[in-house]
Amino acid sequence: MRYKVTLEYDGSRYRGWQVQQNARSVQGTLLTAVSQLFQQPDVEIYGSGRTDAGVHALGQVAHLDVNVRWQGGEIRDRLNEVLPADINILAVESVAPDFHARHHAVARSYIYQISRRRNAFGKPFVWWVKEPLNVKAMQAAAKVLEGFHDFQSFSNEKGKSKSSQVDVKQVSIHEQGDLLVVHLVASHFLWKMVRRTVGMLVEVGAGRLSKDQVKGFLETASPEPALFTAPPTGLFLERVYYPGETISTGFRTLL
Amino acid sequence: MRYKVTLEYDGSRYRGWQVQQNARSVQGTLLTAVSQLFQQPDVEIYGSGRTDAGVHALGQVAHLDVNVRWQGGEIRDRLNEVLPADINILAVESVAPDFHARHHAVARSYIYQISRRRNAFGKPFVWWVKEPLNVKAMQAAAKVLEGFHDFQSFSNEKGKSKSSQVDVKQVSIHEQGDLLVVHLVASHFLWKMVRRTVGMLVEVGAGRLSKDQVKGFLETASPEPALFTAPPTGLFLERVYYPGETISTGFRTLL
Repeated sequence: MRYKVTLEYDGSRYRGWQVQQNARSVQGTLLTAVSQLFQQPDVEIYGSGRTDAGVHALGQVAHLDVNVRWQGGEIRDRLNEVLPADINILAVESVAPDFHARHHAVARSYIYQISRRRNAFGKPFVWWVKEPLNVKAMQAAAKVLEGFHDFQSFSNEKGKSKSSQVDVKQVSIHEQGDLLVVHLVASHFLWKMVRRTVGMLVEVGAGRLSKDQVKGFLETASPEPALFTAPPTGLFLERVYYPGETISTGFRTLL
Repeated sequence: MRYKVTLEYDGSRYRGWQVQQNARSVQGTLLTAVSQLFQQPDVEIYGSGRTDAGVHALGQVAHLDVNVRWQGGEIRDRLNEVLPADINILAVESVAPDFHARHHAVARSYIYQISRRRNAFGKPFVWWVKEPLNVKAMQAAAKVLEGFHDFQSFSNEKGKSKSSQVDVKQVSIHEQGDLLVVHLVASHFLWKMVRRTVGMLVEVGAGRLSKDQVKGFLETASPEPALFTAPPTGLFLERVYYPGETISTGFRTLL
């Protein structure tokens, strides 16, 4: 039986999603829980994509095959009983045997929280930016990124054969109390792409980069966006979309 | 110069407010920062009251005397530069030389967050209660507590000469999404009083205690409420009131 698993996690105490030797990962922690629950040592879990160390998820999706046929709700509840408090299974659904969490995903959304105020509770979930930011200029630069573009300047995957063409459906910036929330929706995201995009938008807000320079990064590969990589703490994988699902332009924030 | 300091903290990594030998405390961490900033080793800090290990504050108040005359905003900013991320000074104001954070406080408010849903981000800031709760019954029992009563049954200070008479101005319970938030305002709170009150209200919600039993705890000293002490994680010291300040019936939540 193949199951689709939707989960949220606080990435603070993990070295990212991906299983690694000698490091605590979300996937590894989940694998241990699944193997224990189903007494099946060889289980494999495929995520929709990786998240880096310190990055969080509100709706990561993975699939797995197990030898039993249980109700999804029961698997969810029994996994949550053995998982640590910072990983929470939201839903488990039985799916077609060819469902693939990564290959079948048609879009992903991320949110990035920038805080304008020091806050005793926010450190693991925001990037605290003290300097004044011109939000209108950031919003105008964000619009430049929307559409089908080559994001090679924003990726850490240089030299690989993979295409760096990305269909960016939305980059919007909302002010909400002391938070500035960047909401990004795209067909897929290249490694480090969100954090470099957000870092660059903050440079625009601080007046150190222009909208035309942002355009330039999309037209010619540049090493510059790598200098503006935003910290992982503010980043949340919000949702993974599959065929037939409507892409939401709304978003949720955590603080 | 005497200054009034208002601060927020995430109590997760501290053994409470009060300075202790061989344990990390909020007061001790603040003392280190103040001594360092003013190069004054013998400084003393008086809080409005203690908070236990794991308890948080949105608006703790303390006072301190230093040998310099600086703008409050400057002291705030310079203290925040040296304090860890989970302690944040909200305001520093110069006050009369006889102002006392504890003796002059006329009321305190606390909020307690109960979560109805497992949440990957909430563990340090909620008490997760799985069983169904009758909120109306909890609200009716909460009303019984309002007024001037003897809270000896709810206190851990037995045998001490201090009075256990408390003027409880408000105990209200609000549902907000997956959260159940208890908001308590009183002249002062006895040690463990809030956590025992909340624990008892959850017993009422679960149908294991009646409103009449709650009344009984106020009329005759009982060891029973001590059995229902809620965990520290959901508890926040919200605000400390001084003469002339209007007591707010609104409240803020964290999640």
